[in-house]
Amino acid sequence: MYIASKDNPKIKLYTKLATSKKSREENALFVLEGARLCSEAIGRWKEKKLDIHSVFSTQKALDKYPEYIDSTLFTSRSETFHIVDEKVSEKLGETKNSQGVYIIGGMSNNILSDETLKHDGKYLVMNNLQDPGNVGTILRTCDAVGADGVIMTNNCCDLYNPKTLRSAMGSLFRLNVFVCDDFSEVCEVLKKCNIKTYAAVVDRDAQAVDKTDFSHGVAVVIGNEGRGIQKEDVALCDSRLTIKMQGNIESLNAAMAAGIILWEMKRSD
Amino acid sequence: MYIASKDNPKIKLYTKLATSKKSREENALFVLEGARLCSEAIGRWKEKKLDIHSVFSTQKALDKYPEYIDSTLFTSRSETFHIVDEKVSEKLGETKNSQGVYIIGGMSNNILSDETLKHDGKYLVMNNLQDPGNVGTILRTCDAVGADGVIMTNNCCDLYNPKTLRSAMGSLFRLNVFVCDDFSEVCEVLKKCNIKTYAAVVDRDAQAVDKTDFSHGVAVVIGNEGRGIQKEDVALCDSRLTIKMQGNIESLNAAMAAGIILWEMKRSD
Repeated sequence: MYIASKDNPKIKLYTKLATSKKSREENALFVLEGARLCSEAIGRWKEKKLDIHSVFSTQKALDKYPEYIDSTLFTSRSETFHIVDEKVSEKLGETKNSQGVYIIGGMSNNILSDETLKHDGKYLVMNNLQDPGNVGTILRTCDAVGADGVIMTNNCCDLYNPKTLRSAMGSLFRLNVFVCDDFSEVCEVLKKCNIKTYAAVVDRDAQAVDKTDFSHGVAVVIGNEGRGIQKEDVALCDSRLTIKMQGNIESLNAAMAAGIILWEMKRSD
Repeated sequence: MYIASKDNPKIKLYTKLATSKKSREENALFVLEGARLCSEAIGRWKEKKLDIHSVFSTQKALDKYPEYIDSTLFTSRSETFHIVDEKVSEKLGETKNSQGVYIIGGMSNNILSDETLKHDGKYLVMNNLQDPGNVGTILRTCDAVGADGVIMTNNCCDLYNPKTLRSAMGSLFRLNVFVCDDFSEVCEVLKKCNIKTYAAVVDRDAQAVDKTDFSHGVAVVIGNEGRGIQKEDVALCDSRLTIKMQGNIESLNAAMAAGIILWEMKRSD
């Protein structure tokens, strides 16, 4: 179906989802923008690993990105794949030079349990991270090093924030991501799996990351950008680890610290 | 001197410098914003390691950030330290919730030579990096790991771009940064110092970063975010190194790759 009006209900739904976390949660839907990112999502949908609610593209984008977007879907699956007017695209686009390709996708719901985790796996846990760019970068890095999964407590910024999804650059579709209510429940499940939990801290007394044995199942917890992991949560972990360096350690941002730790976790493989 | 007007020449100079690279280069001046960042700059100025052209602060900021900004300087050094009207501050502020503290600083000019480099030092070279956020993050990480210096070829984005300075969070004042015209000249100076140069590449045939001997003087070159280092420049380096991983290596962004390499360079210390 061709969409010419900004008042089309699907267009209204898209803009609502793009700006409101509440709306995303109520509908269990999220939005994506960009030819490559949407192409990856469509790929996952073809593998039946992602639900897609709606796809929107301008005719210009279909002509410009044939390697990313299969235009035949817009006729064969026209209830889901919509060509939209340039003006409608302007309303949907969040970045200045929007590519004119958009998706409404369905949130997937990975349940954290001793059956869904690999007991010898390598996991990263995000606890109270607030910057969407950091969360996205950490997802990318987990994907890059081949981590077995990412666990996010829901005091973090929203996984489906458009900015997070942009920074994550499709890693979300390749990773096992678990969003959980409560950190203590996360620790209980990890304990059940014999996965050792480490709190990443800035503390000279903690174990050095490069002297840590990662040969078994392990989960490292990264905390808030400014305040780190709160004491009660550190106490729930089996141990504490730190990155020991000679420089001005305060200069290491949360995503970079996570990256160095992930690198150390995986180099032992 | 109290500044009430947006038409004050110093205010006009600030806004020009904030938006124009050309103006920064012509005047050899740059701008900074934020209480903590300006406080670090003033600290360096007191140590006579940074020139300061002008400091601007609202009265509100002086009251709010006494731990950062010494208000006595605004009377004792009133030719340089100016209290500005809130409206003037609004004109200067680049971020939404500006803190009301601003500096015009003088660029320093570190000359790259066999006398200014430590022959057993650890250096990072940025070649054609275009994202100010990445450059800032890499500066922060060099500071965190205690690298001996950073060399930037001037095909990179501007070191004094306000966004770079914000991401670098004061690391610029703690690091030896050399900005150079030409990559081949950089390689010549490094060679003269017997500092071994490695091109960081995405190539399975290159030497693994964690199997590399960093016990001598070494400089690692990081290239453009999308295209890496161009062939001719790789050929100028002594050797090539890479980060070998099982995951989707393409997901590693330039700043994260630099961070992992810096970590490996410094862990041998």
